Order: sequence, then structure tokens, then C-alpha cells
Amino acid sequence: MVVTGAGLEGVVAAESEICFIDGEAGILSYRGFDIHTLAEHSTFEEVIYLLWHGRLPNRTELNELKGKLVGNRSLPQPVIEFLRSVPRSPPMDVLRTAVSMLSLHDPLAQDNSAEANARKAGKLMAQTAAIVTTFDRLRTGKEIIPGDPSLSFAANFLYTLTGKRPDDLMERTFDIALTLHADHELNASTFAGRVIAATLSDIYSAVTGAIGALKGPLHGAANEQVIRMLLKADGNVQKAVGMVHDMLERKIKVPGFGHRVYRTEDPRATHLRRFSEEIGRRTGHLDLYLASSEVEKTIKSEKRLNPNVDFYSASTYYSLGIPVDLFTPIFAVSRMAGWTAHILEQYQNNRLIRPRADYTGEPVGRRWIPIEER
Amino acid sequence: MVVTGAGLEGVVAAESEICFIDGEAGILSYRGFDIHTLAEHSTFEEVIYLLWHGRLPNRTELNELKGKLVGNRSLPQPVIEFLRSVPRSPPMDVLRTAVSMLSLHDPLAQDNSAEANARKAGKLMAQTAAIVTTFDRLRTGKEIIPGDPSLSFAANFLYTLTGKRPDDLMERTFDIALTLHADHELNASTFAGRVIAATLSDIYSAVTGAIGALKGPLHGAANEQVIRMLLKADGNVQKAVGMVHDMLERKIKVPGFGHRVYRTEDPRATHLRRFSEEIGRRTGHLDLYLASSEVEKTIKSEKRLNPNVDFYSASTYYSLGIPVDLFTPIFAVSRMAGWTAHILEQYQNNRLIRPRADYTGEPVGRRWIPIEER
Repeated sequence: MVVTGAGLEGVVAAESEICFIDGEAGILSYRGFDIHTLAEHSTFEEVIYLLWHGRLPNRTELNELKGKLVGNRSLPQPVIEFLRSVPRSPPMDVLRTAVSMLSLHDPLAQDNSAEANARKAGKLMAQTAAIVTTFDRLRTGKEIIPGDPSLSFAANFLYTLTGKRPDDLMERTFDIALTLHADHELNASTFAGRVIAATLSDIYSAVTGAIGALKGPLHGAANEQVIRMLLKADGNVQKAVGMVHDMLERKIKVPGFGHRVYRTEDPRATHLRRFSEEIGRRTGHLDLYLASSEVEKTIKSEKRLNPNVDFYSASTYYSLGIPVDLFTPIFAVSRMAGWTAHILEQYQNNRLIRPRADYTGEPVGRRWIPIEER
Repeated sequence: MVVTGAGLEGVVAAESEICFIDGEAGILSYRGFDIHTLAEHSTFEEVIYLLWHGRLPNRTELNELKGKLVGNRSLPQPVIEFLRSVPRSPPMDVLRTAVSMLSLHDPLAQDNSAEANARKAGKLMAQTAAIVTTFDRLRTGKEIIPGDPSLSFAANFLYTLTGKRPDDLMERTFDIALTLHADHELNASTFAGRVIAATLSDIYSAVTGAIGALKGPLHGAANEQVIRMLLKADGNVQKAVGMVHDMLERKIKVPGFGHRVYRTEDPRATHLRRFSEEIGRRTGHLDLYLASSEVEKTIKSEKRLNPNVDFYSASTYYSLGIPVDLFTPIFAVSRMAGWTAHILEQYQNNRLIRPRADYTGEPVGRRWIPIEER
């Protein structure tokens, strides 16, 4: 048996053509395209296509994909009724349940052919977004807004969430944020999805498990923890730095810093830092950026840790007017692109993922003790 | 980086005190107790306690656990209404969704303390069983049967499913079947559950993911495939053997044979083979045992593969009067004991489970191509 460190750190669990990370050099690329290239040129729809197909779409292919994302947006009525019935529940629990429920209303749910799975991936991209926006509209007593086919995925999301069409800066910021969160190799949620898919279970089972993993504070929930910290400091620089010093003294992990893979700056943070400033200035939340910036300096000098994807996405999403408890669900909306790409790849060349445990328990062969003698 | 074979075969992913398997010697033990010892002496309730606490319960502790399993059996009304609304849906999809939904009605759902998690594990044991039996009662237009506190977990399950109190042989057979399926180290569903829990996500997220993994035909769904094969042969020995020969010729995997870990007889199959015969004789389904037995001989001589846990559990469950599409959900009811034990263990000494991929895709640094030129 191959004995490794805890948490499978540095252990190769699968071959993949999707995502490359060099944690020492701070390189992240999807299908060979550097994340900086994609952030500069690509739309999220192009990234979805790229992750699924390994190449950029031509105009016809892109329009077809956009049509699918719009066409699949409407939710089965029982899912809407479910969302209506749980207005005070934690959004990640609601999302996990609603996505699981989608399979009950999909005639292709049990069809594990490549064609059916590609179609289901398309539905999941559209419907996960619709679940998040529909849930928020319902819980705030507002009308559900049908998507606008003329809008991009990013603009449509913000529009159906807030009821307002975003301006160009807001749309472009959110679009790039979706791209930056779209995939990250065998992160815990994607890996959970691949473990589930590798039993040849269906794609709904796999992404439902992935959503459950993303919910954890050591994974997707960190962005929500970051903004709660910044808001607790009222976006005040001195207060924020003081809070962080206090956390360091009490050996509490400061959310949004450090990463299992990166030993240098997370290339996604580079972009999100800029957005946090730009969009913060635009919407009157520059204080959150300034506080974030000082917190970053403090953690860098005292702990030598770099901000990860969650740190500046927190203030960026807040400045975009997104409710705090939707930050992690929105992470799920973007990562759905990567989850589905990895699950489709897993099916293509499948092997059951079944490691072993190092047994550290009682010696085997314990004698039975009758209950009276226990 | 540590490069390993596909599917993490033979790779140690965690330390664990719960389950030991020696695949060469055919040894399986829970917390140091050999599975044969447990099959001879233990009840499923004792096994649940053992998996959670590492030792056998005394009379008081056992009674307390039994009280909890009965006390937690009733389902939140919205979960019952959901079960009522999907009578024709695949039971594993329904179970996955219903278990995910339970968290929305549990005030402790977001409390990740050890005490809260222990309580949630108790609820999950009881309510998973209740979901399966309630769903079947509702979809067949029958009254929901409240549990009988005087019955064991096994007898209560059969009673609330069928409306008939099982005789001693049926109860004991089902009880031992639950014990045999209760845990199996880092099988794919348990591993999926630990990957999810290791983000410090909640126990409902982790078991929901595990249910999704168990659904796969390379994992829990195999028992259902076995019985469908036997029924297709009308329990006829010649027909069954002919079908299997045909599958072998067409290189189709015969369900219920071979295992990632065992190189000799799966010790669970030893017991289930006997039950298949005993209970088959009692309930008039000996033909299924006889057909199974010949299929076993055929696969052994032609493929040198041994039956695994799924092969004889299929005819055993069928002879117990359990509907075929509940075989995998019942596997989930038993494995919930192991899932929750592993998830609690993961929380106790947690590290994020985050492996790496071996990148085999396009060279990094692809140049952006404007859409007009694609």
C-alpha cells in the first residue's frame, strides 16, 4: 500500500485534461489557457464551453450554448414550491436539496449516456443559477423574474436576483468573478463529485455531493466568513486590523488566507483585489476594500500568508449588492462549470475511486463479551 | 507529488480506528471485532454503538440508544409530503433528496459541535429507515405505520415496511444483513462522505453525498442488478447459467462478483449465502438460491471471481419480501451506521482532503483566438 500524508496532500488521484495549477509559480490555467488570458478576453459562457469541450466555441456554438442556458432556466414547479416553503433556511442547504430534487423531474436523470450527461450538464448550469435567484426573490417576498435572453449569463444572474440590469462594470466584474471561480482542479468539492461519479452514479448525485462539500468553511464558505469579519469591523481599517491581531493572538484562523496548493499569490486574488477596489468605489463600499487591503498587509507580514480566491471576492460580491448568505451559493453557480466538466471527464475513462485506510484501532480478534458482563 | 495508480487503488487516504480489512486473508472487522463474531453474537443496535463509540454498550447504554432510534423515527411533515409527491421516482433519488431535506427541519443542522453531531447521527440512523419505509407505504397507497418501540431496529424496519411482524428467522436474517453491510472502511460512499465532512461541512451534506455515491452500479446498486438478473432467468438454474455465459462472452460485467479489496471470499458473502438458502427455503424462493449457487460456480471457474456482499444479499432481500428497488436504499440504511461513524471520526481529527491531478491536457500558455477566427 502507498502510505501518504493526511488529506491526500500532494497525492495524484486522477489524470485530467481540464485544469493545471502550479502552486509555486502561481499559475492557474483552464484547458491550457492561462487564467489571466481568460480574465482579459473571455466571457463566462466561453469558459463553460472551454471547460466542457477543451476548445473555444465559434459564434454558432456559443450562440447554441447561450440558447441552452436560457432555455433551461425555468425550474420544475415542485422545485419552486419547495423554494417557497423554506424562506428562512440556510441557502446552501436549500441549494443542495433543490439540485437533488431536480433529478426527480428530469426524464434523462437515469440515462448515463454521454449525450444525456452533456444535456444534463447544460441544465444544471442554468438551473443552479435559477435556484439561487428564485430562492432569494421568494424569501424576500418579491416576484420571480424570468430571465432575459438578450443578457449574458452574468448579467442575467444579477438581473434576476436584484431586478436591476447591471451596468457594464458590474456585469464585467461579475462575469470575470464567475470565470475565476469556474474550476480549480481537484479541490475538495470537485473531488467529492468525481468520487461519486466514479461509482457510475448519476450527475445529479455527483453535483449534489459537491455542493455539500463546497458548503464547508474550509472550502466555499470562507468568502462568507470574510465579509462577516469585514462588516463586524464596520469596514473600519483600524478596527479590522485590530480584530485580525486579536484572532492571530487567539490562534483563530483568519478566513480568506492561505491555500493548500499555492505557495505564492493566488492568481485569482490578483483580479479580485482590483475588482474590490473598482466596484467598491463605484457602489460606495471602498471602505471594505481599504480594510481588506490593510488586513492583507497584516496577515502577510505576521503569518506570511497570501489572500486566496475568497478574500477579495467577499468585498467584490458585497459591493455588487449580493446578499451575504448567497456568496457561497454563487460560488456553486460558477463552480458548477468545473464540477460538470470533471464529472463528464470521469465518466469518459472511469475507474472506481476507492482508497484504503491505515487502521489504527483496537487489535483485531477482540473477544465477545456478553452484555451482562460489560 | 506522489503519483499513484488510477482510482487511488492501494493508497492510504486516512487513518481510521473503525474498520480493518485484510483482502488477502478475507478478514473484516469493526473496531477489532471480527465480522464473524459480530454475525454470531451481536445485534445491529450493538454494532451501531460499537462503530460510534469503539466498544460494546452495556444494558443501560443499549436501551438509551434504542430509545433514541425509536424516538427520532418520526419525520418532519414537509418530508412526508415530499415523499407523498414523488411515488414513481427512483427510490435512491428520493432518499438522497429527503435526507438532504432533513437538515432544513433540524435546529441542530448548522451546529458542528461533537455533541450536536452525535445527536444528528442518531437521528439519521432512525430517519433514513423511516424515509425508506414511509416512501414505500405512500407509493403503494398504504397507511404509514408508526414504529413499535418494543421491536428491534431490524424487526421494526420490516414491520413498518410490510405491515407484518417478522418471525424470528426473518428478523435475525435481516438484523445480521444490516450488520454485514454496516461498514466497510473507505469504500467509495464512505470516502465521499469523509471528503465532504473534511471541508467542515455538516453531517447532512456528508451523508447526502454518500447516498449519491452508493447509488452507482459499481457500488450499492449492484444488489439490485443481481436480483434483476436472477428474476430474468425466472430463478431457473439452466437459464441463469446460460445468461451468465452469454454475458461473459459479450464481456459484460456480471454483477455481484469481484471486489477492489478482497482477493479471496468476501467474509460477508459466507453468511449471506447461508441466509439466501435458509430464508429462501422458508419463503418459497429456494430457486433463487439454487440459481445463485450455480452462477457462483460458473463465475468462479470461468473468471476466478468470488461473490461479493451484493450477490447473496439480493436473493436474501427478495426472499424477505423487500421490493427490488429498495435493495440499495436498504444498503444505505445499514451503511448509515458506518458513514456517520467515519464522519464523526473525520471531524475529530480533521484535515481537508484535497489531492492533485496529473495534468494531461493542452500545453499551458495557449494564445487567445478572437471569436471571428475560430
